[in-house]
Amino acid sequence: MCQVDNHGNLKPAFRILDRDHGSSARRGVLETLHGSIETPCFMPVGTRGAVKGVAFDWLEAWDCRVVLSNTYHLMARPGVETIARAGGLHRFMGWPRAILTDSGGFQVMSLAARRRLTEEGVEFRIPEDGTKQFLTPERAMDLQTAFGVDVAMALDVCPPFPSERAEVEHACRLTLAWAERSRRSYAGAGVLFGILQGGTHADLRRHCAAPLLELDFPGYAIGGVAVGEPKAAIREITELSAGLLPEGKPRYLMGVGTPADLLAAVRAGVDLFDCVLPTRNGRMGHAYTARGEVAIKHERFKEDLSPLDPECACPVCRRHSRAYLRNLFVLKDFSAPMLLSMHNVFFYLDWMRRIRDAIAEATLAVLEAPPEEKISC
Amino acid sequence: MCQVDNHGNLKPAFRILDRDHGSSARRGVLETLHGSIETPCFMPVGTRGAVKGVAFDWLEAWDCRVVLSNTYHLMARPGVETIARAGGLHRFMGWPRAILTDSGGFQVMSLAARRRLTEEGVEFRIPEDGTKQFLTPERAMDLQTAFGVDVAMALDVCPPFPSERAEVEHACRLTLAWAERSRRSYAGAGVLFGILQGGTHADLRRHCAAPLLELDFPGYAIGGVAVGEPKAAIREITELSAGLLPEGKPRYLMGVGTPADLLAAVRAGVDLFDCVLPTRNGRMGHAYTARGEVAIKHERFKEDLSPLDPECACPVCRRHSRAYLRNLFVLKDFSAPMLLSMHNVFFYLDWMRRIRDAIAEATLAVLEAPPEEKISC
Repeated sequence: MCQVDNHGNLKPAFRILDRDHGSSARRGVLETLHGSIETPCFMPVGTRGAVKGVAFDWLEAWDCRVVLSNTYHLMARPGVETIARAGGLHRFMGWPRAILTDSGGFQVMSLAARRRLTEEGVEFRIPEDGTKQFLTPERAMDLQTAFGVDVAMALDVCPPFPSERAEVEHACRLTLAWAERSRRSYAGAGVLFGILQGGTHADLRRHCAAPLLELDFPGYAIGGVAVGEPKAAIREITELSAGLLPEGKPRYLMGVGTPADLLAAVRAGVDLFDCVLPTRNGRMGHAYTARGEVAIKHERFKEDLSPLDPECACPVCRRHSRAYLRNLFVLKDFSAPMLLSMHNVFFYLDWMRRIRDAIAEATLAVLEAPPEEKISC
Repeated sequence: MCQVDNHGNLKPAFRILDRDHGSSARRGVLETLHGSIETPCFMPVGTRGAVKGVAFDWLEAWDCRVVLSNTYHLMARPGVETIARAGGLHRFMGWPRAILTDSGGFQVMSLAARRRLTEEGVEFRIPEDGTKQFLTPERAMDLQTAFGVDVAMALDVCPPFPSERAEVEHACRLTLAWAERSRRSYAGAGVLFGILQGGTHADLRRHCAAPLLELDFPGYAIGGVAVGEPKAAIREITELSAGLLPEGKPRYLMGVGTPADLLAAVRAGVDLFDCVLPTRNGRMGHAYTARGEVAIKHERFKEDLSPLDPECACPVCRRHSRAYLRNLFVLKDFSAPMLLSMHNVFFYLDWMRRIRDAIAEATLAVLEAPPEEKISC
């Protein structure tokens, strides 16, 4: 939980540097064995150890300090043995900065075939090859320890939306039991975060927070959000949940969201984010900009010689026009999804930098999020 | 054909700096309005204005001086009007260095539907949208002039292999007539290259060379090679053809080939190359290395923690192992074809640099080409 600084002194894993006065936002730094992470921070998603379409040299050049990778995907292929033999996930991926892995729980619930949930853990088959797997909190901790990640996540149960209340209650109960087992068994060099579940039920969120906080995790995630519920519910539950988590520890909102969602969550006191939107939507021809979303395949961009975002300093906006990118997209050129993914990831990283600067300069109250509407001219 | 140097003096478009003693190889420099090109040179292929999977920032960082783009693809989409309105192809693509375009002839013969070849030109339909087009030497020159390219190509007729001799003779006759019309009508700021055809027939190659040379093009290409004929024939025809072309002008071998093919052609006196192999094969999981070709999906690389090429300084080899890349490829991760394309293009550019250095240092005779066999361990 603590790192040694250049002078040999222990420094706390998470320090808050500035607080916003008009909201719960804060600017901080999370120390890891692979460098410090300035928060609020967006973590690009590297499901299988690569951020789709964005070479790691770009991420380093753009001062990205941490990426997320998925235990579920890595355990299936190449498997933990291959990663361990490579000397851990950092060396296997070729990424020397910090890595956070999820625990696999979310993907098991959403991707795996024929899963069977018991008190002990969850049995499932990887759809791609039918391999039978059994994931317990202890196994999830062993995997993340073998990966050697900087931030590991407790194994949780994440019900979809909508779910019966009884199902969400059951998920909460298992999540708490597994949090305790995760906490006890994690022996990795990184820090372990607990996960708050409870669906859209405010009382369940509150009910779960107390026992979770008793386990005294070095950080906490808000899980079970952005699993299909309306956007208003996402923001409401995020705000409620952030307020339930310890002030002095990092808060991580899993799987959210648009640039505007991120700003709202930062104002609610969230520090860490991951989301597939910039890469997945980039591959689909959808770019985030300060003036709104650009659906690049649209006819209206056919002769548009301006960049995706005139204020963006990314390698794509410095060089290419919407007309050029549209032509590549319409023709399904392999470079097109790559270029939009690059822009989007840069845009997200830059957006978080602007948010951090605004907190430091006490101007967060006047920071306006990019509109979520599509640009129409 | 000439550029003005820093002192206001005219300098010839092509200068030979060193000659190899044991072969016809030479090292030179081709001056263009968008920078100088050191030869022998490989031009990455940007069919639709993008080198698939390789961002232009990489090409600039790797000292790539020129890319090739395809008139046929650009005239179809986005169309010459869009490119002209953008201020030319350099600005449309966002590539400030030199551009060579082919004339469209090759693609019309190999890709277009329902083409009709006459003395005047070739009528065809773009298969994607059924648009009817008529390409004449004059139109091909107008297009390349509007693109504003640094090196334009005459319109030629490129018969496939095998073809009846009569068909090749007919192609030669049209190619020569069109070369003359191309030469007369080209009004662009770049230089125009003539193209030698003649298939695998040595006598036709010889027969075509004389009238082509009379047109006094600033450079010459060897066309009609690598269209299906055996590798031995490619090398034989390349050697013969290079010897027929003027010593003091740049020679460009169109559409060839492997690193070993390039070295053989350099020894025959060729200066410029383009080929889709590094990008197309990269996307298929095929990497070029100094020790042979790596078919990355092969099981044998599953636990191989060495880079694609231990001697390669590219961003992929500096960071990633074969095991990592294999896993991404097997799982069809979007980054996998991108990373192999990056490596391959870097490898080709670096291979040409090594060839240039060997000519300068008089060590070309002992330079060994990478084996063309697949690496088996």
